[in-house]
Amino acid sequence: MGVIALLTDFGLDDPYVGQMKGVIAGQSPGLSVVDLSHGVRPHAVMQASFFLRASMPHFPQGTVFVAVVDPEVGTERRILCAVMGGSYVLAPDNGLLTMLEPDRLHDCSSAAQSYPASCTFHGRDVFAPLAVRLAKGERPESLGPPIALDQAVPGNWAHPHYKPLAVHARVLHVDRFGNCVLNIPVDSFERCQSVVRAGTSRNARGVRAAYAYGELKGGEVGLLAGSQGFLELAMNQKSAAAEMFLEIGSSVLLELGEEA
Amino acid sequence: MGVIALLTDFGLDDPYVGQMKGVIAGQSPGLSVVDLSHGVRPHAVMQASFFLRASMPHFPQGTVFVAVVDPEVGTERRILCAVMGGSYVLAPDNGLLTMLEPDRLHDCSSAAQSYPASCTFHGRDVFAPLAVRLAKGERPESLGPPIALDQAVPGNWAHPHYKPLAVHARVLHVDRFGNCVLNIPVDSFERCQSVVRAGTSRNARGVRAAYAYGELKGGEVGLLAGSQGFLELAMNQKSAAAEMFLEIGSSVLLELGEEA
Amino acid sequence: MGVIALLTDFGLDDPYVGQMKGVIAGQSPGLSVVDLSHGVRPHAVMQASFFLRASMPHFPQGTVFVAVVDPEVGTERRILCAVMGGSYVLAPDNGLLTMLEPDRLHDCSSAAQSYPASCTFHGRDVFAPLAVRLAKGERPESLGPPIALDQAVPGNWAHPHYKPLAVHARVLHVDRFGNCVLNIPVDSFERCQSVVRAGTSRNARGVRAAYAYGELKGGEVGLLAGSQGFLELAMNQKSAAAEMFLEIGSSVLLELGEEA
Repeated sequence: MGVIALLTDFGLDDPYVGQMKGVIAGQSPGLSVVDLSHGVRPHAVMQASFFLRASMPHFPQGTVFVAVVDPEVGTERRILCAVMGGSYVLAPDNGLLTMLEPDRLHDCSSAAQSYPASCTFHGRDVFAPLAVRLAKGERPESLGPPIALDQAVPGNWAHPHYKPLAVHARVLHVDRFGNCVLNIPVDSFERCQSVVRAGTSRNARGVRAAYAYGELKGGEVGLLAGSQGFLELAMNQKSAAAEMFLEIGSSVLLELGEEA
Repeated sequence: MGVIALLTDFGLDDPYVGQMKGVIAGQSPGLSVVDLSHGVRPHAVMQASFFLRASMPHFPQGTVFVAVVDPEVGTERRILCAVMGGSYVLAPDNGLLTMLEPDRLHDCSSAAQSYPASCTFHGRDVFAPLAVRLAKGERPESLGPPIALDQAVPGNWAHPHYKPLAVHARVLHVDRFGNCVLNIPVDSFERCQSVVRAGTSRNARGVRAAYAYGELKGGEVGLLAGSQGFLELAMNQKSAAAEMFLEIGSSVLLELGEEA
Repeated sequence: MGVIALLTDFGLDDPYVGQMKGVIAGQSPGLSVVDLSHGVRPHAVMQASFFLRASMPHFPQGTVFVAVVDPEVGTERRILCAVMGGSYVLAPDNGLLTMLEPDRLHDCSSAAQSYPASCTFHGRDVFAPLAVRLAKGERPESLGPPIALDQAVPGNWAHPHYKPLAVHARVLHVDRFGNCVLNIPVDSFERCQSVVRAGTSRNARGVRAAYAYGELKGGEVGLLAGSQGFLELAMNQKSAAAEMFLEIGSSVLLELGEEA
């Protein structure tokens, strides 16, 4: 039996996540449910898309990811199922899949309409039962017809812009420790290793490439190849976000030195 | 094997919920434990009672709900087991069952006393082992004698007061998005659809009935038949609680128009 | 199959805990994973050590505890496995084991190095797979050689200092309700029952011994034998931490009366 991984912006104080799990337990007692995170900032589709991208490689093949960050719930937005390396992602069609590279996409909107649903909580009433069907082995074809990969709503924040001596990037996520994840994949670490300064248009400061938090001294900010597959601005036991006035969505300019 | 659903005001930072799960895992490894919520405001019995009412229909029959919001732990308050539609609720007798309509009630206080318990953490020392016994199939009769339904401590916040052109209601819950759940069941939605204003005695504003968050414009506040079985005051991607200065327990007056 | 209990300072908003669970699910689908807590204050080794000490007795024998509060991740610090009463604790060698009394210690650093690891997230890349090996029944000997018990890095906050009419203690933890757990074991409750005042060097106030929160009146602060195995400063439905200006790590002086 598969794993269902839940990703939402519901937080854990409300009974919403518990109700989704109640529905899953009722329809398929043996399923294993894992919380990927429910701490996505409300309506932050970009952050949720990054969480999926960073986390999917660490889950077993066949996992059904249910991503419910859904500011347009109750309107006509579609519900998609992405198939990717033997795993599945159910998500509203609002940019959540932007950072993934799916093998196939299915439009599950009509299957979704077969459920008696509240207008405001499709996570419990639509996504949870669809996820159970996939986790029990039903094929995505039976949830809806395939659509072309370029038919999903795209986000415009997936890629940085590389200039000769600079990179224009975005902050995808600020973690609990104040580490700022940029939208620059770790395979560009070498290209960025000559970084000398980084920051927003209003606040920039000296930064150097580093390998571990532990090698950074008191006030130093490092650019690291982070554990989430992207470069991070980080400090040693301090918050780079607070030091550099960065938050989710901030635009960041990395200034590179003459020599890489 | 059944499901045990945990509802507390313990939060998730402390080790309390983890210790309850340790006890359950030790006494019955195969049980499935689901967190309904641990984010009930400390000692907020009304909010917890609403969480139970809203969530029980979404769990499988036979689920054992353990509701530990227990400001009087260590005093003489009773411990009750409510039987309802084939499921069970264990709770201190302090109003937590107010919003439920149980089929039967049992007083489990003497069974509870058979456990060596700390004076301050009955959730781990008493409720968890009692829940395991129910989840393993023991009958509630064996936990204690039946008592009359009207013998449980009642809360006085379960029902709104309907006037010809107004409804006096209470805020049962404010969720992460700032939606304010009122103690008006959704089957009164039609009756309230002519709403024109709502608020506290000090702050009232225009409000209109709506079906989904998405149909509300910028500053509009809607009255919706929410997913939790009760009417909600809500805005589109904004906090109605902040806009209307509402919090858990606030008294709200809905002013209805002449014609429904 | 055993239980893996996770204790970290990662919080639940980031995808870190979810990724650890993804790794565990992929390597051993049948394992039961319990969150002990992820709300340890960032880098608060003392608090995490207390959580382990207070929680281990409530879990079944054979549980594998994974404690990742690891400010020096990516440096040369060792990874230890403590064996204690048939259960296991995996932790970085930074004082996390201070409050435990293990039967044996193993240095798992070389086994740890066999995993391809990010420099910043050993919880997912190293601790999770090591924990799976133990939970599947592998012996700690196969993870690394035994080392002497006194070879683990110690913390200096494990024990209070007893004077004739006073006890110098530390605050190990402040819980959600504002209860302040001191590093004085409950078996010293009798010795401290004559307490008359308590506080920091700058703020002290009257305090009396008590058995349950419910017996404390409005502004009274009680010294209780708490449910976590240590004495607590607490109030009835109020925060003793706020009242007494205490936080994790605060030094507290208990002044005892002439007669115990």
